[in-house]
Amino acid sequence: MPTPALEQILKERVALLVGADLRAVEEAIRRELDSPVALVQEMGEYIAGAGGKRLRPMLLLLAARLAGADGPRCVHLACVVELLHTATLIHDDVVDRAPLRRGRPSANAQWGDDASVLVGDHLYSKSFAMLVRDNDRAIMETLARATVSMTEAEVFQLERKRSGVLTEADYLRIITEKTASFMSACCRIGGLLGHVAVPQVEALTRYGLDVGVAFQISDDSLDFVADQTRLGKAVGADLREGKRTLPLIAMLARASLAEQERVWALLRRSSLNLDEIEEIRVLVVEHAGVEYALARAHEYARAAKRDLIEAFPPSEEREILALIADFVVDRDR
Amino acid sequence: MPTPALEQILKERVALLVGADLRAVEEAIRRELDSPVALVQEMGEYIAGAGGKRLRPMLLLLAARLAGADGPRCVHLACVVELLHTATLIHDDVVDRAPLRRGRPSANAQWGDDASVLVGDHLYSKSFAMLVRDNDRAIMETLARATVSMTEAEVFQLERKRSGVLTEADYLRIITEKTASFMSACCRIGGLLGHVAVPQVEALTRYGLDVGVAFQISDDSLDFVADQTRLGKAVGADLREGKRTLPLIAMLARASLAEQERVWALLRRSSLNLDEIEEIRVLVVEHAGVEYALARAHEYARAAKRDLIEAFPPSEEREILALIADFVVDRDR
Repeated sequence: MPTPALEQILKERVALLVGADLRAVEEAIRRELDSPVALVQEMGEYIAGAGGKRLRPMLLLLAARLAGADGPRCVHLACVVELLHTATLIHDDVVDRAPLRRGRPSANAQWGDDASVLVGDHLYSKSFAMLVRDNDRAIMETLARATVSMTEAEVFQLERKRSGVLTEADYLRIITEKTASFMSACCRIGGLLGHVAVPQVEALTRYGLDVGVAFQISDDSLDFVADQTRLGKAVGADLREGKRTLPLIAMLARASLAEQERVWALLRRSSLNLDEIEEIRVLVVEHAGVEYALARAHEYARAAKRDLIEAFPPSEEREILALIADFVVDRDR
Repeated sequence: MPTPALEQILKERVALLVGADLRAVEEAIRRELDSPVALVQEMGEYIAGAGGKRLRPMLLLLAARLAGADGPRCVHLACVVELLHTATLIHDDVVDRAPLRRGRPSANAQWGDDASVLVGDHLYSKSFAMLVRDNDRAIMETLARATVSMTEAEVFQLERKRSGVLTEADYLRIITEKTASFMSACCRIGGLLGHVAVPQVEALTRYGLDVGVAFQISDDSLDFVADQTRLGKAVGADLREGKRTLPLIAMLARASLAEQERVWALLRRSSLNLDEIEEIRVLVVEHAGVEYALARAHEYARAAKRDLIEAFPPSEEREILALIADFVVDRDR
């Protein structure tokens, strides 16, 4: 599945086009994390400074370029979405009791739930304050809608986790409203920053949504098959945290009755040990749950590329965004 | 200390002036909490629907009246600040592991930390989305600044709690940047909604800050002397949660060396039992720590009244806001 060649090609082409902007985003993040409160600074640098994929700023910057915009406002808003994303990661790790993030102890493991809740709130406020400084109504509305959708979907996900039931429809609703709506907002903001007509802004909005769904399905698939070292967290972490994702849902739809009963019995337990996680993982692999999920992810990636091709003429920006749609599915971490 | 007569008089006069608006705020809150996700609706109604003092919407509405404004925008923004306040309460209770809020189990006790973190985030997003809908730059900036200040002060408070040191200066910094900056923002928004000059907006901003400091000192004093049933949570709850507030700081400055050593030894423990809490409480009462704190609170209340008197001619609105400055100190819950 992983195609490191694609990652390398993509990295180089992204760097050529928006590398300077991405470096400016890093500087802006560092500037915003500066605080007289030591714990804010320390945790902020640990989390936001420790290099994620920066996929959201990248999407925003590339969408803006495709729409004909670049400059300080794009960098500023790319920083806004990354800080907001970081805030949600910190809170997610508290909620999931995740011990690891990007190959290191999570913020909650390192500083406690209390500090993580508060620093997450602070980053959220910071990103809101930066957004207000930019003062563009359509952009603020885009991000407001996305955060309402994301946080509501988070609660819905918890509700489904507790009830123990999850269908493919519920799963798609959750990842659409959570991960995808935010990536969609990033691409839409890029479009709004540019000088393109409404249909093009809408095309970028749909592209972001499709890429987001593809990204999350792929992310959830990696939990079953990734190389743990490259992934930066334990394989099976989602299972341990009680998350029921598409490969598992697909497996349950194909397994024998006895296997289904066995898996349901395991899922009802309050916690799973390593052997039990491995038992479920093997069943998911045997019943091609990951293949099923990745096939769906590829459909969304194809839809994402169509969204762009129908609305924009060929360009380096359009090609890179199309490569990103492929990359979010074909990656190994 | 408690003067229920003042509470009654205040209630009646507030009701005459902004009672209809406050009812409209309740309706707006209920409307905003409406959600297709059952858990959002259920927790939202439990927390935001269960009647706090609504002090922040009240301050906003009264400040707006004093500045010559009323109507739907005032109600809308009063709802914004109450939802935001509710979000911070939910997260605070998670951070403090508080078992009770307003005489009932806290949200975290009832639904768990995970649900509380997520629903808090959702309410925060909702209030941000409502603010963007109103689309007034100065008001958005006011609230953005206040939330950055509040959340940073929360982290600072945690840092101080962990280090075990707290001075009166640290205490005042924390409550100013946390509680008071938000009340100040409510009053400033009221001023901005009206048609008054900058000095008057600034006077309302200072009034809110002074009322906020007075309010928080009084709140912290009640933890040592309140009637538990009326307070809605256990007396000594702050001590149990490791919060070091002004009455305690004042007591430590006046106690004998032996008493100080005893108290420090107790405060270093990871948890206190009921007898130990009572032991500290009695020392605070004996050394007039509460009197000291309330004397400081009265100074702030007087300053709050001066802020208004210097900037506004006499009116029913000005008188009620002055009564509120007295009330936040002289209350029993």
